[in-house]
Amino acid sequence: MGRDDRPTIVAFQGEAGAYSEGAAFAALGEGIDTLACSSFDRVFEALADGRADRAVLPIENSLAGSIHRNYDLLLRHEAVHITGELAFRVRHHLLALPGTRLDEVTEVISHPQALSQCERYLDGLGVIRRATYDTAGSAKAVREGELTGTAAIASRRAADVYDLEVLAEGIEDDPENYTRFLVVATEPTAPPPGDGHGAKTSIVFALRDEPSVLFKALSVFALRDIDLTKIESRPLPPGHTIDGQRWTYLFYLDFAESTAADRAQNALRHLGEIATYLRVLGSYPRND
Amino acid sequence: MGRDDRPTIVAFQGEAGAYSEGAAFAALGEGIDTLACSSFDRVFEALADGRADRAVLPIENSLAGSIHRNYDLLLRHEAVHITGELAFRVRHHLLALPGTRLDEVTEVISHPQALSQCERYLDGLGVIRRATYDTAGSAKAVREGELTGTAAIASRRAADVYDLEVLAEGIEDDPENYTRFLVVATEPTAPPPGDGHGAKTSIVFALRDEPSVLFKALSVFALRDIDLTKIESRPLPPGHTIDGQRWTYLFYLDFAESTAADRAQNALRHLGEIATYLRVLGSYPRND
Repeated sequence: MGRDDRPTIVAFQGEAGAYSEGAAFAALGEGIDTLACSSFDRVFEALADGRADRAVLPIENSLAGSIHRNYDLLLRHEAVHITGELAFRVRHHLLALPGTRLDEVTEVISHPQALSQCERYLDGLGVIRRATYDTAGSAKAVREGELTGTAAIASRRAADVYDLEVLAEGIEDDPENYTRFLVVATEPTAPPPGDGHGAKTSIVFALRDEPSVLFKALSVFALRDIDLTKIESRPLPPGHTIDGQRWTYLFYLDFAESTAADRAQNALRHLGEIATYLRVLGSYPRND
Repeated sequence: MGRDDRPTIVAFQGEAGAYSEGAAFAALGEGIDTLACSSFDRVFEALADGRADRAVLPIENSLAGSIHRNYDLLLRHEAVHITGELAFRVRHHLLALPGTRLDEVTEVISHPQALSQCERYLDGLGVIRRATYDTAGSAKAVREGELTGTAAIASRRAADVYDLEVLAEGIEDDPENYTRFLVVATEPTAPPPGDGHGAKTSIVFALRDEPSVLFKALSVFALRDIDLTKIESRPLPPGHTIDGQRWTYLFYLDFAESTAADRAQNALRHLGEIATYLRVLGSYPRND
């Protein structure tokens, strides 16, 4: 429950029925209320002005990679921190008005990324493809326009929300389409117990442009037997600023330990001697 | 020039006037012929069957991150290797039929990613947004439909290709929107001279899931004073296979040395002792 015993309100980017909304229910239970936002900036605004208690953000996709925009927004909003994570399987379905037969479908609409993830299936169907803003929005368009002959690629939840029929299930070419979502909040939460298992900490740091500096930075974890679960160097164009600072290199790193553990605190203090910038984005139960 | 003294044919993904086509001309000169392909898979097919001599592929974007799809395709096509790179500034322009005034524009069409990169500008304009398959395709749609009142967000080259007028230049919210493109080919080319400057090598490798194994892998470069310019762990879902193998961890790494240098050869031999899979994607002149 959120403040005042009302249900927790969870912001997400997209229309009702979006994959992010499904991830919000999967991460936080069906008892939450959700708040649809038109952009990731609006999601952070909803957290900042208290309209939402939490938000669920996609952070990396197994096919498309990290979503740098959300890392940037996390850096810009110092009060926001990560309280949880969820690996969510993205399954695309073909949705149409009830009673539609598959051979009556002449046009399929969805977000270009969903259309391209279902390329082989759509090639076999021989239909016209039309791009839309998002997957759930395409389901909404089929319903609102009562579009006969047009199907949308979206989630099963979108079929329920817009009262559409699932003509075909799991039509993505690559069945291993996972998106990792983060649960974020402005209210501080205690880090999970530090036991080396079941906890994860996400950090962002910057390094000087010196030989072997990344090797030295990673040594602070290796020396303390802390496993890394993600590392990524962020390509920064010349003069790029985040949080008012100019950097040459920026790194995203997750390690398998809670900040409640001494060895994590020691590693972070050690990293602070090497890094020119360091921020702990959150320490949370592992769920990947 | 390509084979038989005809111009080099360079494949790219998108419609004529796409940012990828602009990157191809910037990387290889205006004397090339370009081949528009509807998907990245078709780009690799065009290389494999000899219709194209080279291809230009986006591999990472400063705002959107790495394009894992193209890494996967490079892994699947063993004969294809990287021969060059280019950091290309993506500038979005607002294009309309000649004679259109900005205050006559009521609708703006483009790929959702371009629309979202111009969000603040479009908010100020107060126009309807409509998603399309790609940026150059939206310029083509304005021309083919002779759409009055509709503008497209696309490249300057798209304005030339489809005879449209540039109503506004550089309308992206974040002016530091760079995409790194790779030039790839099936014909082998010699690695650049190994002098520690001006050369780069891209590799992909997999590691066992053991403590500190990434630290050991990076030591092979640190011990030989070889600088890293990119590192990224690839999130692989359980059971994911690439090239017929199952892995837990996969890494993309670029280092600032040519495979023509002994120290690079030694580092790669050393890494081969640690990695369960290792492939050199190419060694090429540095241009980032």
